[in-house]
Amino acid sequence: MIAEQTLTDQYFRVRAHSETICQGLETEDYVVQPIVDVSPPKWHLGHTTWFWETFVLVPNAPDYRPFHDDFSYVFNSYYETVGKRVLRTDRGNLSRPTVEGVYMYRDYVDEHMSRFLNKAELSPELHALIELGLNHEQQHQELLITDIKYILGHNPLLPIIKMPIVEHLRQAINPPVSIKEGIYLIGHPSTSQSFYFDNELGQHKVYLNDTTLYGNLVTNGEYLEFIEAGGYTDFRHWLSDGWAWVQANAIKAPLYWHQIDGEWWNYTFDGLTPIDLAVPVCHVSQYEADAYARWKGTRLPTEFEWEVAAVDSSAVGSGTVQTTSRQLNWGTRWEWTNSAYLPYPGFITAAGAVGEYNGKFMSGQIVLRGASVATPEGHSRPTYRNFFQPDKRWQYTGIRLVERA
Amino acid sequence: MIAEQTLTDQYFRVRAHSETICQGLETEDYVVQPIVDVSPPKWHLGHTTWFWETFVLVPNAPDYRPFHDDFSYVFNSYYETVGKRVLRTDRGNLSRPTVEGVYMYRDYVDEHMSRFLNKAELSPELHALIELGLNHEQQHQELLITDIKYILGHNPLLPIIKMPIVEHLRQAINPPVSIKEGIYLIGHPSTSQSFYFDNELGQHKVYLNDTTLYGNLVTNGEYLEFIEAGGYTDFRHWLSDGWAWVQANAIKAPLYWHQIDGEWWNYTFDGLTPIDLAVPVCHVSQYEADAYARWKGTRLPTEFEWEVAAVDSSAVGSGTVQTTSRQLNWGTRWEWTNSAYLPYPGFITAAGAVGEYNGKFMSGQIVLRGASVATPEGHSRPTYRNFFQPDKRWQYTGIRLVERA
Amino acid sequence: MIAEQTLTDQYFRVRAHSETICQGLETEDYVVQPIVDVSPPKWHLGHTTWFWETFVLVPNAPDYRPFHDDFSYVFNSYYETVGKRVLRTDRGNLSRPTVEGVYMYRDYVDEHMSRFLNKAELSPELHALIELGLNHEQQHQELLITDIKYILGHNPLLPIIKMPIVEHLRQAINPPVSIKEGIYLIGHPSTSQSFYFDNELGQHKVYLNDTTLYGNLVTNGEYLEFIEAGGYTDFRHWLSDGWAWVQANAIKAPLYWHQIDGEWWNYTFDGLTPIDLAVPVCHVSQYEADAYARWKGTRLPTEFEWEVAAVDSSAVGSGTVQTTSRQLNWGTRWEWTNSAYLPYPGFITAAGAVGEYNGKFMSGQIVLRGASVATPEGHSRPTYRNFFQPDKRWQYTGIRLVERA
Amino acid sequence: MIAEQTLTDQYFRVRAHSETICQGLETEDYVVQPIVDVSPPKWHLGHTTWFWETFVLVPNAPDYRPFHDDFSYVFNSYYETVGKRVLRTDRGNLSRPTVEGVYMYRDYVDEHMSRFLNKAELSPELHALIELGLNHEQQHQELLITDIKYILGHNPLLPIIKMPIVEHLRQAINPPVSIKEGIYLIGHPSTSQSFYFDNELGQHKVYLNDTTLYGNLVTNGEYLEFIEAGGYTDFRHWLSDGWAWVQANAIKAPLYWHQIDGEWWNYTFDGLTPIDLAVPVCHVSQYEADAYARWKGTRLPTEFEWEVAAVDSSAVGSGTVQTTSRQLNWGTRWEWTNSAYLPYPGFITAAGAVGEYNGKFMSGQIVLRGASVATPEGHSRPTYRNFFQPDKRWQYTGIRLVERA
Repeated sequence: MIAEQTLTDQYFRVRAHSETICQGLETEDYVVQPIVDVSPPKWHLGHTTWFWETFVLVPNAPDYRPFHDDFSYVFNSYYETVGKRVLRTDRGNLSRPTVEGVYMYRDYVDEHMSRFLNKAELSPELHALIELGLNHEQQHQELLITDIKYILGHNPLLPIIKMPIVEHLRQAINPPVSIKEGIYLIGHPSTSQSFYFDNELGQHKVYLNDTTLYGNLVTNGEYLEFIEAGGYTDFRHWLSDGWAWVQANAIKAPLYWHQIDGEWWNYTFDGLTPIDLAVPVCHVSQYEADAYARWKGTRLPTEFEWEVAAVDSSAVGSGTVQTTSRQLNWGTRWEWTNSAYLPYPGFITAAGAVGEYNGKFMSGQIVLRGASVATPEGHSRPTYRNFFQPDKRWQYTGIRLVERA
Repeated sequence: MIAEQTLTDQYFRVRAHSETICQGLETEDYVVQPIVDVSPPKWHLGHTTWFWETFVLVPNAPDYRPFHDDFSYVFNSYYETVGKRVLRTDRGNLSRPTVEGVYMYRDYVDEHMSRFLNKAELSPELHALIELGLNHEQQHQELLITDIKYILGHNPLLPIIKMPIVEHLRQAINPPVSIKEGIYLIGHPSTSQSFYFDNELGQHKVYLNDTTLYGNLVTNGEYLEFIEAGGYTDFRHWLSDGWAWVQANAIKAPLYWHQIDGEWWNYTFDGLTPIDLAVPVCHVSQYEADAYARWKGTRLPTEFEWEVAAVDSSAVGSGTVQTTSRQLNWGTRWEWTNSAYLPYPGFITAAGAVGEYNGKFMSGQIVLRGASVATPEGHSRPTYRNFFQPDKRWQYTGIRLVERA
Repeated sequence: MIAEQTLTDQYFRVRAHSETICQGLETEDYVVQPIVDVSPPKWHLGHTTWFWETFVLVPNAPDYRPFHDDFSYVFNSYYETVGKRVLRTDRGNLSRPTVEGVYMYRDYVDEHMSRFLNKAELSPELHALIELGLNHEQQHQELLITDIKYILGHNPLLPIIKMPIVEHLRQAINPPVSIKEGIYLIGHPSTSQSFYFDNELGQHKVYLNDTTLYGNLVTNGEYLEFIEAGGYTDFRHWLSDGWAWVQANAIKAPLYWHQIDGEWWNYTFDGLTPIDLAVPVCHVSQYEADAYARWKGTRLPTEFEWEVAAVDSSAVGSGTVQTTSRQLNWGTRWEWTNSAYLPYPGFITAAGAVGEYNGKFMSGQIVLRGASVATPEGHSRPTYRNFFQPDKRWQYTGIRLVERA
Repeated sequence: MIAEQTLTDQYFRVRAHSETICQGLETEDYVVQPIVDVSPPKWHLGHTTWFWETFVLVPNAPDYRPFHDDFSYVFNSYYETVGKRVLRTDRGNLSRPTVEGVYMYRDYVDEHMSRFLNKAELSPELHALIELGLNHEQQHQELLITDIKYILGHNPLLPIIKMPIVEHLRQAINPPVSIKEGIYLIGHPSTSQSFYFDNELGQHKVYLNDTTLYGNLVTNGEYLEFIEAGGYTDFRHWLSDGWAWVQANAIKAPLYWHQIDGEWWNYTFDGLTPIDLAVPVCHVSQYEADAYARWKGTRLPTEFEWEVAAVDSSAVGSGTVQTTSRQLNWGTRWEWTNSAYLPYPGFITAAGAVGEYNGKFMSGQIVLRGASVATPEGHSRPTYRNFFQPDKRWQYTGIRLVERA
């Protein structure tokens, strides 16, 4: 748990980072929504602010007056319990409130949050809610980056902008990580001080077989071999749904890749650049990750294998639980697992709007583990469960293989 | 035909008016595209500029360099002959070029046009092309207004902005206009000096029966009676396609009408205002216009009846052609006719991109006659043939009835 | 008007013909609905029977009991006034009533109609209603043929069946037909004894310019030249909607044409046969007809030009009306015009269900004139107005050209 | 493994059962496909026959000639490796081959299979292939029943037919089944003689917590309480995807339920009958099963919990594996689990067309365990993994609850 002065500090650090991400944007870039998955940057800035207003200030700060009556309607997201939400598809049609208006909204709420945090003796529940709000905003920071990339990367002018992340990280050579057959503890130890989402709770035992995870992520160069071997045109590598997706969308390469006069380029915040073969492949769907693994005679890890391989040995208990001697090197790509996003034993959806946070998405989605170059500092841990539908690829997603027994 | 000095003057007057229309916009308002029919205002500003660049400067001004290589791709519209066009649905996804960039593009092209118009001895073909360009920009001016209205009128904040038109014009009492059975001349007399589009050409004779057109347009108050009589729930008033449209879209009133606590309001550039019963009804589809007419035991005019009733008697020939003694009072609403948009006798599509202007749309659309409060001054005449699909209603469309024989 | 004994005779002749059309079908062929435009043959047989039951027997034969309570629901079509209709898309999902059940329904209704026609002194209204019923059933006979062709022609086994029509009629050489500029009478002279639909009424004058219609329809051989000249790949020949249709549906030839190893074949009731170059092209949309005409430097006729060219000179009045000295040879293909299907002057939709017959379709459709090899004998006349949307081509549609002035 | 004489016997028993299921059908019932999930009965009869022809006879019986060249195209299903498949949506458009033709096809193939089975010394591979074919046909037998039910249950005549299953089985009172925390063996012991699908292979250990499964399935009466408590109108009970499904499809009750004058009825092969409150609820989606469980403060079992609770104690090994003292009573409803359909450790897709059998569907689907009243005798076992998307409910699906810890 974070001490209160630190909490105020962290509030302003997190809030500032959202704006830092947007520093290179033109006003127009804040507004558009090219696909339903991508929200306009101004919506992210407003929605994260609305969270503080709705869940912290309105119920707890007696003198607080909401900034604008209609903003609750405009900036609500999936919280069915808090009024009628804007259809997600409509976000990109809203020219108002303006970007300036959204920044005024942020300032207004920040000022009131500052007063509130300085004055209040925070109850443990409020303290936890504020930590949740910070983590919520951090999640939207990663989405801000990926949504901005989508907006600019689908503009025929392919603009270059300043973004506080390094996209092209090559990886050192990392040896494979083996897990020995046995029982392992999975999930967040809720007794710990660090933050966790409800979907990480319910620490429980799983039985794993002997497994060896590759030390390195699949690189652009390795993935290019799959493309050149006709990987996208042979249905035998693909899951049935994946093959239908390839055909329906005429998929031929990872997102942002362009073949120009026989050479492969990809779009990054530095503009259109040649593919760097040594960099881990990025922006692939789980269907592509699975097809690549199959083509290589390997497979994707389960989320449990990944967690065991990633956790520091000192973090797990004794007894029947076995530990790995060495750990995965992770953090530049969200790594697709082959685990469906499902509740851990004992998971119960919390009551109220905050309860809608994670549980209701436990259908039709796949767990990703790790973190990416776009993940805010301090917002990753080995027990973290990210999740997306298997066809999504605008996140910084990559591929880690497991040796087939 | 316009004298050359006048032409330069008119060029700058027309160009300035496009920008006057946008004077009240926020940057964000220029960007969005809530439905496929509505283009972002910055697209209109860019597209009209692209017309001058592509059709006048590039082929005729030897030293001219296009402002930006990609703008031709971004601002092309339906001209299949000039490169690959942006899918219309995509316009609202483009945050770049920025609004500022578009205004720079306008300035750049205007400066070159100024030089060109001042220097060149314009051939008749060039002169005609420039007149076409001016009329083209005027058409987009009306679309700018209606598209801005759609963008703001579908924003939950229902913004008020300054727009150089008067939406709420009441009409004086105008007596009906009768046509006597006989032969009439239809179409633009191409020998005249005034501008015309190719679809008005081919002056030809039609035979009309005795007809009486109402002197006044249907008012909000009259239309409200139709609503209150259950007009939208009784299929017997509707064309089959119209009834399907009503059902599929849950249509209950004209566009921009809202029923709040039993009272009817409508959105205008002045914000949400109570319905003025004396003002002509606006923003109705042809399906609604036809259903209303049927419910009243009347019908919509043909485009020929309308033209004959609108034309000044001195404008038509002698001989078998008969003339009306008095004329329609028109100009505040585009008036739905019951005529399909089809070629006049002898119509031939012109060669090249300009030939795509009108002819290829002669399928599935309905002729509207007149002009509206949003039509630029000097851009209307009795022979003008506007056209839209019968379900469209974001234009300033209204209803004029004809007595059923 | 038909004398009453003749009416009974004609009733049974018409009813028998519906069944003759189906004589070659397997039970399974009666059931399927491959596209929404095509109804299952058993539905046509049931629907035409339902017409007699609902509009003649139930209101007029006091002792009549409907054959089955649910048949009204199953066999209703577009008549919104008579109960809730089955969605058209659902017809192909209904395995019951069985084909045998439908034939029993026909027998039952025929027996009651026989009693009714023999007993009753028919009022003029009833007499007219029965004539309407006969013509209604004849319309469905043509649809039966075209729907059966679609069902079998889209089956990979391409079955051969017996059908009482001759599809491959070559045409003699017919000289062109010229119309002299002037006023002509259009529409059915309601005083005549022959049957007419309400949409032919309202005889009225039109003014036509000098026109020359080709004596012959466009042949397969001529149309093949258009294909081989790249007609389907050059947008300049096409209306905007037509080009979108070509692209969206990957249209490359008329319906039922197949290119196999470089040779063109087409499906007919005789199975897959080589294209006969001398036969009039068939199963083209109006978009294709228009594109072909444009490519040839010609155009399609208006429905008025067609009617004047088709009518026998003795059939029109005196006075200013001019007549042609010779007439079109027509009757093997429905000929696409370039006229939208719109009401004649004075047209009023009749009250009640029969009033839904024609008027409510007067939007978005195109007039076809003439008749086809599939039209029942006695069901054609020069004033007949057939109508379909411009993309439809499963009817026996063809192309007649007009010289461009 | 089945002895060879027995294999021949079983071949004919299984083949006969497919036809017994169809004994009550009219020819028309074999043809239609009301939704894409439902195949026409004649397609099932042909497809199962095609399996024998393609995988057994053509590669192994030297003198065998396929019955018809086009049948391979018509009756192929999802096997991408064997020619171009018919789009699933098209099956209901095919009136040919006729039902009689399909039965002739069955007879022809059965005769050749009889000769083949009597003559051949079957290799272990062939023996296994034939067992696979028998199990494949049994799977289609259950689909035949559910597809026939869908076809008739969506016909406005709601026909009654003879079907060799008992739909309305009440359940005795069965006590709950508890599992003690520990390690359990999951999957089919491949050393056993009994048949298994590849997806059951890979016997492996899992760690389970203490769990108690309800002894009885949720009844109609219990489910009705959920409906009456507003279960379908409160989003809080639903997964996000489930709530979207409820809204988009206006779901208000299980499939085949109809509320008539306030009373609930359901369609069965006996026609429309009142709901029997004591019978297990049937034809629910996993979304409904999950919502019901959540509303009750319980949850669905995982497939591992289910298997452990269902397996006879003598079937599992010794050592750390713990066994239940009593077993589930199952077999009347396919029981939705909360497990995604994913590979067991070590699962590898087999090469060739048979390899497409199961593995490629391991995405987006949910495991169902047990069997139903429609499952053929001998086609169920505790390790069987059935799978469907979570919105499907035309199978005989039901709900078993687990106590929440």
